[in-house]
Amino acid sequence: MITPTDISQAAARIADWTLRTPLLPGPRLGESLGLDVALKAENLQHTGSFKARGVFNALLARRERGATITGVAAFSAGNHAMAAAYAGRALALPTVVCMPPGAVVTKIEAVRRYGGEVILTDDLLGTCREVAAQRGYDLLHPFDDPDVIAGQATVGAEIVASGFTPDLVLVPVGGGGLISGIAAAVKQSLPGARIIGIEPVTANAMTHALRAGAAGPLPQRPQSMADGLTAPFAGELAFGYVTSWVDSIVEVDEDSIRRAWWEMLDQTKLLLEPSAAVGLAALRNGLIEVRPQERVVFVISGGNTSPAALASLTVA
Amino acid sequence: MITPTDISQAAARIADWTLRTPLLPGPRLGESLGLDVALKAENLQHTGSFKARGVFNALLARRERGATITGVAAFSAGNHAMAAAYAGRALALPTVVCMPPGAVVTKIEAVRRYGGEVILTDDLLGTCREVAAQRGYDLLHPFDDPDVIAGQATVGAEIVASGFTPDLVLVPVGGGGLISGIAAAVKQSLPGARIIGIEPVTANAMTHALRAGAAGPLPQRPQSMADGLTAPFAGELAFGYVTSWVDSIVEVDEDSIRRAWWEMLDQTKLLLEPSAAVGLAALRNGLIEVRPQERVVFVISGGNTSPAALASLTVA
Repeated sequence: MITPTDISQAAARIADWTLRTPLLPGPRLGESLGLDVALKAENLQHTGSFKARGVFNALLARRERGATITGVAAFSAGNHAMAAAYAGRALALPTVVCMPPGAVVTKIEAVRRYGGEVILTDDLLGTCREVAAQRGYDLLHPFDDPDVIAGQATVGAEIVASGFTPDLVLVPVGGGGLISGIAAAVKQSLPGARIIGIEPVTANAMTHALRAGAAGPLPQRPQSMADGLTAPFAGELAFGYVTSWVDSIVEVDEDSIRRAWWEMLDQTKLLLEPSAAVGLAALRNGLIEVRPQERVVFVISGGNTSPAALASLTVA
Repeated sequence: MITPTDISQAAARIADWTLRTPLLPGPRLGESLGLDVALKAENLQHTGSFKARGVFNALLARRERGATITGVAAFSAGNHAMAAAYAGRALALPTVVCMPPGAVVTKIEAVRRYGGEVILTDDLLGTCREVAAQRGYDLLHPFDDPDVIAGQATVGAEIVASGFTPDLVLVPVGGGGLISGIAAAVKQSLPGARIIGIEPVTANAMTHALRAGAAGPLPQRPQSMADGLTAPFAGELAFGYVTSWVDSIVEVDEDSIRRAWWEMLDQTKLLLEPSAAVGLAALRNGLIEVRPQERVVFVISGGNTSPAALASLTVA
């Protein structure tokens, strides 16, 4: 488990490479929910998601420990891929990213724009391992890596340092790296704050792991409009963090995500991706108990969406 | 012309009723343009646009001068209407708003949600005057009012106070109230900063006024996807501010606005309305001379858009 020292070292390590994103007030959403709402705007982070934090921390920490990195191999549906390509360019490292054939086109294009090489494959982990071995590149896991988790934890550390003391933090869950880091940062400073994770019912790797008692592959290929949350398995490390420090994981259906997505867009005026709307979907579905005027942080995990996805809002 | 004292009084007057919006860094947009970009995020303002500033300042200033206000009558295509209804509710004043039948549906709904009464009419000013006279309400002009201009000037004052000293400020232009206020605030503090206004070529009331030498109605009904900029005439006061303090007014076509809208959404990760994208459209069209790495503020005037409008992005 990462310590407060690990997290503050990560924060110092990535400070020149990432943005300290604002914690914005959410008065309209707050009024509508009867809560005191703040929005941790990781959509404003470099590459449009929190993923830049973990990637920079992992690469820079490996260098600090004396590793010679000659290239980066990553696998991801999109946001980690973009972050890896961006960090690779920033650190002058060739980067190859394995992405699923169904990845959001704008995310694939963004990887290429950052100079990353894209391999489209259904076997993300297998292909990525192969490429890393062949080329002698460093494999960069999207979530199951203590340095990646320490990087994501800086989101939590910034919330703690913001002066807005949350009663509740709502975190979208894919493989579990973000919620692991946030829970580690928040619970070690504010043990009374609740941390609740939300995942699509059709991409529920963490719920599956909790039911099984261990992280493992989902029986079906996960699919969701919240494409950033479609990890095929929960991280083994993340499973440990979640069982230790997360209050609960809840699941939301696709219709709820679509409705919540527009509501979040309209009420926050931030361009966020569907993955970042699952917290509101869970609240609207009555899945999370709250007291009136509680201080609630919505972690706006990312903002990488496409015109085609936005057009789907008119269907609702 | 409003003075720096008028502006600081306005800022103090509206401080409890409006948000001091962030001036956000725009690293992606800046990299893409070769400029040092900052975004004045008025889409995050109460009611989703800068209009709340002018409305609160006008109503509160009238009260300070001893007026008894029993109700508010306003006319607007949308954002001023929403701000008037919001301020009316906040100040416990009944509010009626005249809007054109073609107004964005989500803006009409928002006025009603804030408790405003909506009258759909093609004769905005005439109907509004009539209603104000009949009911004894205060008419609240969307732009041609010194208190409204002083309220919008607080946007400029916040830019000046931000520590980011702009070489250039890009301001969307409808009737001209926003650019009047911003120019007054910025030019009286930073005379070297250029202020450039941008309007749709199909809704170019200010260009029309500059050509005619005086503010007056456009010969054709203005139409643009930048619905917030479709004022049928430029303000007489605004005409004076623009001729005194604005460096130039440029015009952009609809295709440019549509392309710039998606680029702004994607690169800023802010939900902004098409009106707020005209500055980028002008830059991309080569209408504005800039030097490399100049410090440029984009005024993100508002974020009130609809799923239907967003769906139009796939057409491009």
